[in-house]
Parts: sequence; structure tokens; C-alpha cells
Amino acid sequence: MANTETLERFFSYVDQNQEHYVTRLREAVAIPSVSADADHREDVYRMGDWLIGLFKQLNISYEVAEPGTHVLDGKTLKLPPILLGTYGNDPNKKTILVYGHYDVQPALIEDGWRSDPWKLTEDSTGRLVGRGSSDDKGPIIGWLNAIEAHQKAGIEFPVNLKICFEGMEENVSEGLDDLILREANRYFKGVDAVCISDNYWLGVTKPCLTYGLRGISYFKVTVSGPGRDLHSGVFGGTVYEPMTDLIILFSKLVTSDGKILIPGINDDVAELTDEEKETYKAIEFKIQDLQSAIESQTNLFDNETQTLQARWRYPALSIHGIEGAFSAPGVKTVLPCKVSGKFSIRSVPNMDPDKVTACVEKYLKEEFAKLGSKNKLNIESLHGAKAWVSSPNHWNFVAAAKAVEKVFKCKPDLTREGGSIPVTLTFQDALNKNVLLLPMGRGDDGAHSTNEKLDRSNYIQGIKLLGTYLHEVAAVKST
Amino acid sequence: MANTETLERFFSYVDQNQEHYVTRLREAVAIPSVSADADHREDVYRMGDWLIGLFKQLNISYEVAEPGTHVLDGKTLKLPPILLGTYGNDPNKKTILVYGHYDVQPALIEDGWRSDPWKLTEDSTGRLVGRGSSDDKGPIIGWLNAIEAHQKAGIEFPVNLKICFEGMEENVSEGLDDLILREANRYFKGVDAVCISDNYWLGVTKPCLTYGLRGISYFKVTVSGPGRDLHSGVFGGTVYEPMTDLIILFSKLVTSDGKILIPGINDDVAELTDEEKETYKAIEFKIQDLQSAIESQTNLFDNETQTLQARWRYPALSIHGIEGAFSAPGVKTVLPCKVSGKFSIRSVPNMDPDKVTACVEKYLKEEFAKLGSKNKLNIESLHGAKAWVSSPNHWNFVAAAKAVEKVFKCKPDLTREGGSIPVTLTFQDALNKNVLLLPMGRGDDGAHSTNEKLDRSNYIQGIKLLGTYLHEVAAVKST
Repeated sequence: MANTETLERFFSYVDQNQEHYVTRLREAVAIPSVSADADHREDVYRMGDWLIGLFKQLNISYEVAEPGTHVLDGKTLKLPPILLGTYGNDPNKKTILVYGHYDVQPALIEDGWRSDPWKLTEDSTGRLVGRGSSDDKGPIIGWLNAIEAHQKAGIEFPVNLKICFEGMEENVSEGLDDLILREANRYFKGVDAVCISDNYWLGVTKPCLTYGLRGISYFKVTVSGPGRDLHSGVFGGTVYEPMTDLIILFSKLVTSDGKILIPGINDDVAELTDEEKETYKAIEFKIQDLQSAIESQTNLFDNETQTLQARWRYPALSIHGIEGAFSAPGVKTVLPCKVSGKFSIRSVPNMDPDKVTACVEKYLKEEFAKLGSKNKLNIESLHGAKAWVSSPNHWNFVAAAKAVEKVFKCKPDLTREGGSIPVTLTFQDALNKNVLLLPMGRGDDGAHSTNEKLDRSNYIQGIKLLGTYLHEVAAVKST
Repeated sequence: MANTETLERFFSYVDQNQEHYVTRLREAVAIPSVSADADHREDVYRMGDWLIGLFKQLNISYEVAEPGTHVLDGKTLKLPPILLGTYGNDPNKKTILVYGHYDVQPALIEDGWRSDPWKLTEDSTGRLVGRGSSDDKGPIIGWLNAIEAHQKAGIEFPVNLKICFEGMEENVSEGLDDLILREANRYFKGVDAVCISDNYWLGVTKPCLTYGLRGISYFKVTVSGPGRDLHSGVFGGTVYEPMTDLIILFSKLVTSDGKILIPGINDDVAELTDEEKETYKAIEFKIQDLQSAIESQTNLFDNETQTLQARWRYPALSIHGIEGAFSAPGVKTVLPCKVSGKFSIRSVPNMDPDKVTACVEKYLKEEFAKLGSKNKLNIESLHGAKAWVSSPNHWNFVAAAKAVEKVFKCKPDLTREGGSIPVTLTFQDALNKNVLLLPMGRGDDGAHSTNEKLDRSNYIQGIKLLGTYLHEVAAVKST
């Protein structure tokens, strides 16, 4: 058990330095570290340098791992460095590995942002709006703020911390898995548990600990025919149109009410046990929370449990868009010669990504053959990650639950997530240690969307939560 | 009949001034007069000024009609001016009205251009590659070059010319119809016939005269649900996805082999008569011409007549793309909240655009209702134009046919076109005069596509053709 007086001192210091933390986050948001856009690669490096500056300031020793190069938008680029930090080396303390990422999703003001996405803007309700505020700059800076608060308030840091911050999470974490496997018995040696703050509360009022994630299989399906884009007036009616074929194929993937039509996809989904059924009863979640997050009443189910199960423990298929067709506003009569549709399947235990890919390929090839088209079909699997589930009874989770109670005066919900954080499974498998997901932001933060935000109170309470969790870890009697 | 010696002198002058004409076209192509992009509106004005400069140089008297303003990309913009020119006013000569447009389609080098689209580039086979080279800067400059050649070679101009050059053809010709109706009994008074050079040869070797065009009905279908774009991991499986609904709806529009599935669309298509059947036999057209133009073997029919009929006299439906979804390269897991699919139906005699719109709306609403989705559907008709057919036996066509024989030493094909040039029908109806389409470019020019080109020989022979046509018009005995 952490000393109450110590925690009070920590909390008080954090409260008094709110503006300092907001300023620090504003500096970070101002660096548009978009990893999936070659034009922003320099900004990703710059963001890494900014963090290294903070490491130096806080006496965190570090190594910079350079994962090599990759090709993006036709250019060969240096991958952003993976920053490995070490804070403390006391053999009598536990060692916690924290992971986060300093790259962000793309953001253009014309996508519908109400303020410049690269300028952290606080609205009247304390929402700190800016790209990366919640995903994942707020949380990674949160860890560093917690270290700083201990230093400034003269409180002994309760654990040894290992840090792993990458700059490619929004672009399939290229290079990270290799590094983790390589460093498992060197840099990450001695780690007792892992904590990742890169997801969200289920709703907007109650903290949660997350013990499961869906996996993902991402597909790019290309239909090509003519050697160049054609004028639809001149050629419409005389050629097999790739866009028609792709649309027909994609209409066979999923129904309007979300039923996946690809044979085999649902075969391996883990059975819902009575024990698991019970756990949904305790979760604080209302359909209104979902409706408020999606800003509409277009929810599939009116039942909370069914909604949570659909998000956490059943697969889902989403069509993201089409590359190569006319996508701008206005009127254009092009007949596109090559179109690539993108969709992903969120997978759950015990689905296997290889089997998912095999099912998708077989089905789409069969359906395409039925069209009798002279166009060509090409199916690519761009990304695959397995689903993950952990045990919420492990001391790592118990420590976090106690921290939530101390900071938020309530028990956390134990949740799973619909999204994928592939590194979670990699850490668990490579280090053979428990991994805890400890979110800082709320369910309506809008990560990957427009007007992404982190509430000021979540940011500030989040810094307290991360620090308190480490104190609770230190207080654990046996591992 | 035009004097042979006169024409030889005209031809010889044109041949000797090839480089001058190419330079002039290069200047015009360098002005990116994209009418459908607000950012390029200044360039469209600039292109109009460039033409006015040429009018002055050639002693063409002119009026500049300002059609007012419109809203594009959220901005209120001045519509590009419609340039009305008059060259000659001899009551003993016929008066021909020529129409063309000085605006162009968008072009980005990253769309697949092999050279800068705004820099006219001649390749080793004499193809003058650049946006607008063939559509429609080459032809409009062709008329002006023909005037200049007559002046410089000291040849009397055979007719009075009225000129109508607009700058909004690639953006639904906003303002043009009103102007034509208004000026029918003033500026356009006394016009004996109309000639438009804004289409293409059927193939790549033989000129044609065109006496029919398909119409077009262009639709934007929007499905919306959530108030903002969502993370597909977090929300996939729990909401009605607009993209899924739109894809399913669009899969019900047309089959892979081009059959339109919307009830009622085919009801009013004019019957194929035995007389019309006969006309296809004389046309020089091989499936290989189509394959060479589309740069693939993905033609729907192996039969030439069937192909021509599909292009000219039967409707076709093409899906152009989707606005609002993920359209960039790479991997993005967005669940788009509002997506707008665009498709068009090429219509033929005797289809009525209003009935087409009614059929589309009824069908899509019914199909959407079948989905049982909570998303919202909105259908907009962005553009409608009727099909057009004329008589190829009129003196206007006979004069053009003779001009083709003199310049190209062969009889032209009499063709129809799959595309739409709505102004054709407006001129015919407003002036009650015959309209002739006299193309300059080849079937593989790639208007509205990447690497648009005009062959040097087509450009130079085209200048001769336009001039000779006017001499043949002058030689017509009775109207």
C-alpha cells in the first residue's frame, strides 16, 4: 500500500502544475508527426527528438533504436526511431515496462476540424482539442509528467521504469516486433509487467482496465481493366468497368446490419460462456453513451450487452474506402481503370489471421468468377494482427484497480476493446509477462477522427493515475 | 465549290507555320484553366484574357458576356466570361456559328501523367501531350489559326463567323444556356448553321462527322449516419455503417456486363430500325480500335456493330467514385460517417431526364428501405442533359463531308457519340438551325483522362479541315 501522505503530496503537485502540463502537450501536438504520410516524416523524427530532450531533462537514460528503412508513397524513408528509456535500476524494486507512440493519424482542417488540428485548443468545457492529444501524446507525456512530479515534489520513484516509445504505430508499427523480440532478453530483461496507455474508457464518466483486444485483418482488393482512365461517355456500355465489379464484390462482404457473409469467418469465434455472460452485468454502459460517442441514433442494437459483445467478442467487417476512383467534390465523368477497395475484419479469440485471409481470398475469387468479367482481380492482405485476452485477476490489474479507486473514488470497469493494439500480444508473448491496458482518455475522444480531444480533467487525473498505479505495483507483496 | 488553287495556298501556308501553331497551343495549355476547381478560377479568367488578346490581334470584334456568380467549394465565384466574337459581316455570305470551350478537366501529375500536364510535350510519334490539347484548346485555337492563315496568305474569308467560346464546359456549362436563349435573336441572329469541334474520331485513322450524342443524368447518392467519422475498431459491429449501405445500394445499379437494373430506364429507348441497322455497315471500326483506345482486351462485345450501338444508341451506367470515404494510398481504419457515391446514366433518344431521375429516386429509395438501416439516404440529381440526333443529309454536313474529302482524301464516317455536349441541343433548339459536330482529334486522345494528347498531324490537318469546311459552306447553292 502506498503511503497516503506521499500520494497526497504527489496529487497536490500535479494539480498545481496543470498549466505546465497543458503547455507541454501543446508543444507536442504542434509537431504533426503523421507516420503514414511521407511528407511528414521529418516531423516524426522531430517529435522523437523532442521526447529525447525531455528524457535528458528528467535524467532518463536512453537508447535510440533505428529500425531501418521502408518505402512509402514511392519514397525510401528512414523509419522513425524507437526510443528505449530506463529510469531507475534498483534491484529491490519491481520493473514496469511502459509503451506508447509519438506518431499520430493524419488530420486536415478541411476534414471538418473546428480548429487547427496542430494547435491544441481548449474549449469552454475543458476539452483539449488537437491531433494526438489523446492518441497517444497525452498518455506518453503523462508518464514523463509523473516522473517529473516525483522529482520536483521530492518523492522516491516507486519502481524501475523501462520505456518503449515508437513512431510508427499509426502505420502498422513497422520494425517494432523485430525490436521487441531482439531486446526481450537484453533491454527488456527483468521486466515484471507491462502497462500500455493507448486506449479509452468505455464511456465518458468511469475509468476502466482493459484485458482484451480484437485483432485485425486488413485487405486491399484491386479490380483493373483498361490501361488508362476512360471517358464514361465514350466508353460507357462497351467495357467491363472495374468500379462496377468492385462494388458488386464489396456488396457481398457484409449486410447492412453487420452480418459478415464470408463463409468460415465466424467458425472459430470463441463460445460465449456463462461466466463471461455474468461479467457484462457489472459494466457501466448505456446505449446513450454509444449514441453520444457516435453522435447519432444509428446504433445496431438497443441492448447494452449485445452492443458490448458486438464490440469486444464478435468479429466485424468495415469498408473503409476506394482508392483510384473519383473521390473529390463535384462532377466528374471518369470511368476509372483500376480501383482498390479497402476493408478490414476485426477478429476475436480464437480466429487465426491466416485462416481469415484464406477465407477472404477464396470467397472473393469465387464471387468474382461468378461475374464473368474480363477485368482482373488482385487481393492483398496489408496487415494482420491476432486478438488478445489477458487475466484481470493478475497483480498488475489489481494494482491498477486500486490506483483507480484512489484517484477516482470508484472501481474501474473491466473491459475489452474493439480496436487492435498488436504490440500488446507481442509483449505478452515475447516477455511472457502480464500486459495491462490502462486508458487515460474517454470513449468520445475521437482518436482517428476529426476534433480529437483529451479532457483536461482526464489528462490531469491520468497523470495521477499512472503514478499511483506504480505505487500500488510497488506495494504488491508477491508476484 | 472552293477554288482549288485558293485551298492549295491555304494548305501550304498552314503547313509552313506548324511550329507557330504548336507554340500557340503550348501557351494555351500552360494556363491550367480548370473550371471545376475554385483554386484555378483565376487561371480560367486568364485563359479568357489570352483568347481576347488573340481576337484583337486577328481583328475579331467581340463582346464579353459575364454570366454572374456561383458557389464552388464553399466559395462564391465569378463565372468565367463567355466570349462572343464576330468576324465578317457580309450580307452575301453565309454566317456560321462556331462554339468551343477554353476550360479544361483537372489534371495532377500523380494521377499517372508521364509529363507535366500543363507543359505541352511532343513525343517521338508527334503526340502533343497536355491537358486541354485536344479538349478543347486545340480545336478553338484551330478556328483562330484558320482565320490568321487566310489573313496572312491573302485569301478572302469565305463566310461570316460568329464565335461562342465558354469557360465552364467541364463544369456543367453554368450560365451558357441562358445566354444562348437571350442572344438567339440578337448576337446569334442571322446564323445559318452551327459547327462544334469538341469531339473525336471514332478510331485513329479516319475522320468523321457526328450527328448524334447521348445525354447524361448525373447523380450523387449520400448515405449518412454517425455525426463524425469513427474508429472502426471501437465502433465496428455496433453501428449501421453508411459505407456498407452505399456499396449495397450501388451494387444494385448495373451488372458487371453493363445491364442497367433500374426499372423503367430502358422503357423509352428508341427502337432500332432496319434503316439505322444499315448505317453501321459502312463505318470503319474494328474491335482492335476499341482495344487500342482502352489499352486492354476488356471489351464487353466482340462484335463491332453491337459495340457501336452500345456506345451510341443504348443507355449506359457508370459509377465514378465515392466522396467522403478513405481514398488515399495506405492503410486507414476509418469508419466514414457520410459517404456520397456518384454515378451517371448516359441517355439516348427518346429518354427524358426527368423520368430518368424519377426512376432512379424511386428505385434507390425502395432498395434502401429494404436494408432496414437507420442511416439516412439523400439523392441529388447534379446534372441532366437530353440526347441529340440531327440529319447528316443537311447541307452543313454535306459541306463538311466535302472538306474531309479534300483534306484527308477519304469520305468521313457518319457517327454518333457516346458522350454528351449539351450545348448542341440548346443551339439546335434556340436557333432552329442545323448543328454539325466536326471533330479534330482522334478516338484515343484521352480527353478527361491522363496523358491527354492531340496528334500534331490532326492539329495541322484539322486547321485545314475547319477552313476548307467554311469554303465548302460558301459554295453551297441553296439552303
